Order: sequence, then structure tokens, then C-alpha cells
Amino acid sequence: MMNRLVIIGVGLIGGSLALALKAAGKVNVVVGTGRNEDNLKLAESLGIVDEWTTDAREAVKDADVVVLAVPMGAYESVLATIGPVLKQGAIVTDAGSTKQYALTAAQVLPEGVHFVAGHPLAGTEKSGAGAAFDSLYQDHLCILTAGKDTNEDALAVVEQMWQDVGAKVLKMDAKEHDDLLASVSHLPHFAAFALVNAVRHQKTDTFDPFAFAAGGFRDFTRIASSSPTMWRDIAIANRQAMLKQLENFQVELNAMKQALENEDADYLLQQFSSAKNARDEWLRSKGQGEEP
Amino acid sequence: MMNRLVIIGVGLIGGSLALALKAAGKVNVVVGTGRNEDNLKLAESLGIVDEWTTDAREAVKDADVVVLAVPMGAYESVLATIGPVLKQGAIVTDAGSTKQYALTAAQVLPEGVHFVAGHPLAGTEKSGAGAAFDSLYQDHLCILTAGKDTNEDALAVVEQMWQDVGAKVLKMDAKEHDDLLASVSHLPHFAAFALVNAVRHQKTDTFDPFAFAAGGFRDFTRIASSSPTMWRDIAIANRQAMLKQLENFQVELNAMKQALENEDADYLLQQFSSAKNARDEWLRSKGQGEEP
Repeated sequence: MMNRLVIIGVGLIGGSLALALKAAGKVNVVVGTGRNEDNLKLAESLGIVDEWTTDAREAVKDADVVVLAVPMGAYESVLATIGPVLKQGAIVTDAGSTKQYALTAAQVLPEGVHFVAGHPLAGTEKSGAGAAFDSLYQDHLCILTAGKDTNEDALAVVEQMWQDVGAKVLKMDAKEHDDLLASVSHLPHFAAFALVNAVRHQKTDTFDPFAFAAGGFRDFTRIASSSPTMWRDIAIANRQAMLKQLENFQVELNAMKQALENEDADYLLQQFSSAKNARDEWLRSKGQGEEP
Repeated sequence: MMNRLVIIGVGLIGGSLALALKAAGKVNVVVGTGRNEDNLKLAESLGIVDEWTTDAREAVKDADVVVLAVPMGAYESVLATIGPVLKQGAIVTDAGSTKQYALTAAQVLPEGVHFVAGHPLAGTEKSGAGAAFDSLYQDHLCILTAGKDTNEDALAVVEQMWQDVGAKVLKMDAKEHDDLLASVSHLPHFAAFALVNAVRHQKTDTFDPFAFAAGGFRDFTRIASSSPTMWRDIAIANRQAMLKQLENFQVELNAMKQALENEDADYLLQQFSSAKNARDEWLRSKGQGEEP
């Protein structure tokens, strides 16, 4: 049971965590903070937070646990702001998508404040407190990237917090996390944004491809409706891994394009089949063979 | 009311059309044909077809309307096979994704047999008679690409058939159709297949990115579970338009990669925002602002 939990950035991620902890009866008081007053008022009216203030220093001063759920571009300034007023023994954790960056940014925190880097693998393309719901983390993975400097007691508190909201906690190295996520999360977002732009640039008064887009396009591009700010920050924070993934993707696209130029139907069939088999196998392994 | 309708290829597309016409009471007898006897038996047991035979010539000999719903790579051989036995005045139509190719392939049909090229913009990633359902075309677009040689009466019959199953019929030029679909349908499929392969090639005994894939990856890659044969044929049949779309996509990816190399966060934010806005606007225009 946590006494005083502070959520910095009460959006989909932070808000859903607060709602789930409250639903499970695992927290006493939730304090929300952020720059957007309307969003904080909404969070209070939805029962996500018990108290709120736009002053992050005021919010965190008696905190037991602080969850950083803002775009990663704000990490440095937020951590520098709150560091000096956190009490000794306070735990700071985050939910950002790239972990080497988070660990580096957290070095600004003072001695006696414990940082635990976390990443729940859950989300939707929606943003803001209004998008939060208490079952977001149920049965999803949450990765904690503990290193040799991580305080064991703080790690246990954060692990328990995620288990309390139904997540399955996995611990791994920060670089491994960043490489893995670049391939199955960050690259698809890049590709979806690029594809929508490729279509957008062709639109004229008399030629509107969007008018002919159907369900396949909708699902393929769903993640292109995600928060641009969040994804800018993820891309920059994980740029080395992202660049490598973009190169891998370009190699595949180039090979398929070359095959198309050569009318090499056999190569295309082989590539399409391998992709379908890999994806179908993945769905089966997750017990989702019958996706909707 | 059609008397004798023949479906060549009783899968998701052909089977759903038959089910919908039967549900609407708009067809007397549906005959199924194809190479897979088990699939045809399944189609009969599901009430999709009244009769079936694996002999396409036998199936079509008294047909009023023949719907070609096989992968486009089979068009030439199927049309050459059935052409000589079709009765005068018979109507042949198709549901393939590229229309210039369909019109060219249909030139093998004899005088007095009327070909109408069609493309219903509906589907799922599933294949086979078991995937068919009678509401597949409800409120979806169906494009008919009539040219100056198209028989007006035959066109009216095919238009009525699609309206009878709830589709909104739109007529346009075959090249325009192929260019439009290359951008919002064929390119996303290529990109989804390529991305799954890029991830697949990185998998090792100790590094399995698929284990960390979540909802975004599932939706982005859903279309990579589509029929590889069908997509090989579409790619080859529409290769000029596809090559142009792949180039457009590569331009976008390259520009974003360049920005990442230069740590140009502003450019990335602008590109991500433009893509999100274009997609959100598209969803609103379709009345799907609140997608699931």
C-alpha cells in the first residue's frame, strides 16, 4: 500500500495507472501534476487524482512514489525541477519507451532518491486524462531495466506496483530493451507516419486516395494517430537503434522493389509467405489466432 | 433477380457475395467452382452454393452471370478455359484489385460475352469459404471501371448486383483506379510484409522481438496475414503504379531518416503532426472519429 503517489503527466499512461491502483485499493492519495490545468481538472472529475497542482515542486514534496509519465523530451527539465525537493528515500519511476535515455536523464536526481526505469507495454493512440481506463495494464508486459546501481527495495516497490495493476513484470538490460522496442514498436510508428504522408502528398482536388482507403489502411495507420510530441521524443531518445531499424526496413523494401522491377513473382511470393507465417505464428503464440 | 450465378473461387470475396445475394433473395441458383474440392464442399455445407463442380467449363455453361473471384494470376487461364463454353449474352465480372490487368486479360473472351471489371473495396485478411459472411459489402464502395467498349445492359446488371448486397457503386477509369488503390491498399500491404520480414530476420535464440510486440504491431501488421498468392498477383498486375508508390514511400522514409541522423526534432514533429492530422481528418470524414 502506497501512501502518497504523485503522477507527473496525467494522460493515458499515468491516468490509467492511477485508476488501476485505486481500483485495486493499493494507494492512499494520488496527486496529479502537469502543465495543462484543464486536463488536471478533468482528471479530478474522473476520479483519477485526489489532488492536483500545476506546480510540480509542490506536488512531489511529500511523495513516497513519483511516476514520470510525460513525453521523454520533458524528462531532463522535470527531473531537474523536482530533484531538490524530493524527500530522502523517495522513489521515482517512469513509463517512457526508451530506457537508456531515462537512466541518463535520472542522473540529475540527488543521492538518497531512488530511480527505477520502467516501461509498460500497453497503450492506445489516444492521449489525455479522458483516455485513461483502469484495465489498460491487465495481462500486459511491464519491463523494468534495473542495473547494478538500482536500489533493491525501490525496485521491489515498483515491481509490486505494476503487479498490482495486473501487469507481468520482466527485468532486462536497458540497451536490450531499446533495441527490441525499436524493432516492434518504434519502427512501425515511423513507417505508419511516413506512409500517411506519402499518401497525403499525392492528394489533389481531383485525386483523393483517402476516399478509397478501407479497413486495411485504417488498421495499418492507427498508430499514426498517436501523439506526435511523444513520438518525436522517442525517436530522438532512441535514435541509434531507430536508425539501425530503418536501415533493416529499407533493405527489405529495396529487395521487394527490385523483385517487382524484375517481375520476380517467385521472390515476392516467398517474402509475402514468410511474413504471413511469422505473423500468424506470433499470434498463435500469444493465443490470439482468432483476432477480430 | 439473377437465375444462374457462377462463382469461380468460393473464398471470402466470392463466398460473401453469394451469401449476401441469397440473403437478399436476388439469385435463384448459385454454382461454385474452383480447384479445391474440400473448400467447395465446405461452401455447400455453409449454404454458400447450391451446386458445385471442380470443372469450370461444366460450371459456367448455362451461366447468366459469372463472378471471377480467384487470385489475378489465374485470370488468363480461367478466362481462356471458360470463354469457349459461355453462352451468348453471358456476363462475366470480377472482383480483383487491379483493373487495367483485368480488362487486358478479358480480351480473350469471345464476341457476345460481356465483361464488366469490378472491385469491391472490402475484405479481411482471412481466406476460404469459411471466412465468408453476408454483410461484408454493406456500406462499402464497389468500383466498376466501365470503358467505351462496355455493354450498357451488362454494366447495369453488375451495378444492380452490388447494390443488392449493400455496396455503393462508383464508376471510374481503370488507370485512375489502379493508381488510387496502389497508394492506399497495395503499398500498405507491401510495407506490412516488409516490416514483418525486417523483424523476423533479427530473431535469434536470445533476441526475440516478437515477444515484445503489442497492439500497435498487431494492427499495423494485420494485413501481412493476407493471402500471399493474391498479393503476389496484385503486385505483378499493378507493378508500374506500385513502383511509383514504393518510391514515394521511400522518399518519406529517407527524409525522416535524414532528420533522425541530424537530430532534427522539429522536422520529425512536423511530419508526425501532419500525418496524424491527415489521418484524423480522414477518420472524421468517414464518421469514424471514435474508432475502437
